Amino acid sequence: MKEITGGICAAKGFKAAGVHCGIRANRTKKDLALIVADVRCAAAGVYTTNKVKGAPITVDKLHLADGYAQAILVNSGNANTCAANGVELATQCCELVAKAAGVAAEDVLPASTGVIGQPMTLEPFERGIPAAVAELAASAEASDSAAVAIMTTDVTKKEYAVEFTVGGKTCALGAISKGSGMIAPNMATMLAFYTTDAAIAPAMLQKALKEVVVDTYNQMSVDLDTSTNDTMLIMASGLAGNAIIDCEGPDYDAFVEALTAIASHMAALTASGGEGATHLITCTVSHGKDKATARAIAKSVVCSNLFKAAVFGRDANWGRILCAIGYTPGDFSIDKCCVWLESAAGSVYVCENAAYHPYSEEEAAKVLAEHDIVVRVDMGEGEAEAKAWGCDLTYEYVKINGDYRS
Amino acid sequence: MKEITGGICAAKGFKAAGVHCGIRANRTKKDLALIVADVRCAAAGVYTTNKVKGAPITVDKLHLADGYAQAILVNSGNANTCAANGVELATQCCELVAKAAGVAAEDVLPASTGVIGQPMTLEPFERGIPAAVAELAASAEASDSAAVAIMTTDVTKKEYAVEFTVGGKTCALGAISKGSGMIAPNMATMLAFYTTDAAIAPAMLQKALKEVVVDTYNQMSVDLDTSTNDTMLIMASGLAGNAIIDCEGPDYDAFVEALTAIASHMAALTASGGEGATHLITCTVSHGKDKATARAIAKSVVCSNLFKAAVFGRDANWGRILCAIGYTPGDFSIDKCCVWLESAAGSVYVCENAAYHPYSEEEAAKVLAEHDIVVRVDMGEGEAEAKAWGCDLTYEYVKINGDYRS
Repeated sequence: MKEITGGICAAKGFKAAGVHCGIRANRTKKDLALIVADVRCAAAGVYTTNKVKGAPITVDKLHLADGYAQAILVNSGNANTCAANGVELATQCCELVAKAAGVAAEDVLPASTGVIGQPMTLEPFERGIPAAVAELAASAEASDSAAVAIMTTDVTKKEYAVEFTVGGKTCALGAISKGSGMIAPNMATMLAFYTTDAAIAPAMLQKALKEVVVDTYNQMSVDLDTSTNDTMLIMASGLAGNAIIDCEGPDYDAFVEALTAIASHMAALTASGGEGATHLITCTVSHGKDKATARAIAKSVVCSNLFKAAVFGRDANWGRILCAIGYTPGDFSIDKCCVWLESAAGSVYVCENAAYHPYSEEEAAKVLAEHDIVVRVDMGEGEAEAKAWGCDLTYEYVKINGDYRS
Repeated sequence: MKEITGGICAAKGFKAAGVHCGIRANRTKKDLALIVADVRCAAAGVYTTNKVKGAPITVDKLHLADGYAQAILVNSGNANTCAANGVELATQCCELVAKAAGVAAEDVLPASTGVIGQPMTLEPFERGIPAAVAELAASAEASDSAAVAIMTTDVTKKEYAVEFTVGGKTCALGAISKGSGMIAPNMATMLAFYTTDAAIAPAMLQKALKEVVVDTYNQMSVDLDTSTNDTMLIMASGLAGNAIIDCEGPDYDAFVEALTAIASHMAALTASGGEGATHLITCTVSHGKDKATARAIAKSVVCSNLFKAAVFGRDANWGRILCAIGYTPGDFSIDKCCVWLESAAGSVYVCENAAYHPYSEEEAAKVLAEHDIVVRVDMGEGEAEAKAWGCDLTYEYVKINGDYRS
């Protein structure tokens, strides 16, 4: 498996575009992305567990009932959530894509991100969808353009692609995603779109998605707020020419490995680009009692507001790490818990068997001066491992969210 | 029932003191509080559910095994948590109090708050405990002094007392508490100490405590970080002369009512004084499906980082309220959810049946300009009610916690 360029257009059979259609007042900010496949694709999705759900999610579930899709339409600037006519509007958008791109309306998957509860009209879509179709291209630039169009408070676009082998055939898998606040995904992140040319049956695609999110997107948090619009969608064109993956085995495993690689990368990228973040915090847990406990402990550490603020202040306040491990739900022992703070600048052993381990504050400050920080936790209890990604809590996070709508 | 002065010394039979003993370098900040009862008291406690527990909690549980106590010793500046000699040190402190105040060492309850995992020595206690005993007094000033000595990042001292009637006898119940960060109590708040002169059996006292914290301290959050040292202790001297409360009935109910009044007041005071807070956010939920669901919804709203930041920015971003209600665990319906933003400046109806209700942003801004904000939620589903208290998320919170130790 190796990293390649091309993002959402890296796999054979996918075109993309990003345009400004007028949902946002700022004309220089693109607000509509379109991904269209040359052929009808096996497709799958995972969505937020929030009881308040964006209207597009209702339409996605309906359109994915048969396991196939051919296009994804995404707008930023308005979440189309808590709006009386939301589902109707999302359905009309699919019809506009169908007409302009020559695909079936039931094969279009809509997604929205932005402010919740603001009125939205069809008008910008009537203008923007044909414009997006006219710009569709199978290029790295087109993927960039789509990745930019789905951004809200994100400071960088998020895209990634890998090449891998299934049954002797070279396949590609690429993704774009967005998300920097209201990030505590529970099934998927804010918005993530994946394309692959691997041939895979819809049921196996859905299975792979569910399997992968547990250790990737669900282990990432910016602010503990599980969004109403979290959506991860994937389309598989099958144009790589591999024998279709329709059961478990080496081919399925290769696919899951590639999907995990991208999803882990995207989770880290999203946490790193969390609203106002100045540090990426990765917590690795080893020798956990079991997998679920290890996951929960790692996530608890990267979710602690207090520890997040300490990282912003470059303060090696390891007591807050112990505190966060200690309030993790579940029945486990903390007596053998050891903790290291690590980065490119070194490794500092701060806690041994749940008590202070002598260390140099100066060395710790050097470690915490780096952008990417690792909290390495050894629970000394079992054999399970897990990882979670988060970011620091900064003045800028408060500023962004104290005045998001204006 | 009416509010009275005197705090922790309001009830008959209690003396208090607060001194500087040298745990903190700053000589102008008191760091040791002592509460001593004239007689041996029925006593009870509730503690953090964090698996990492302050050493004093181990000693408290041991000393409260018989249901009686006579003194409470509290230091700020060091949490005595994750220290190898913590329990030994806390036990030695009890012996020092026993010697200086003439009570049994097993009737002394220690408590600590401050930095986790820092070494602590007996030396400041050897000096401070006799000094505190020398200053013990049964006065409002002595209660103030103790309330100040237990503060860490608190900006105001927290004390409150009420007078109530049990079986025709006038009783008093008073409290001091501290806590402004690492506040997401789970059984009790950071540190809270209550005294009463009501006569009540230890078992009923423990029962009352457990009953009351569920709807008071456990419904309050500053930052979701459940502390390692959360402790709530109560001593009942019995000097009011009422017939001892040793079973359920009107006398027990009167006691629980008084305890609830103080605990609710203290919860609101603690949230209002949360680190960096500029607003108290109270969420009231009516017509919830059941009590547990109503509690969880109210707490979810006051815990949302995103909504907390919006309140700081005085932004009526009600979509974030719906989002937080939506990710509350449990099986309930959000379709009939209505929301009002309220304060002394008025009431603004922002959400009807989980969708936008037209309102004036100008009026909403006026409501949010007040310090005390109420989010009134009507779930339209059942008959349960609940309340929760929180505060806004501000630059100052980040500043305080980015550099707490220095």
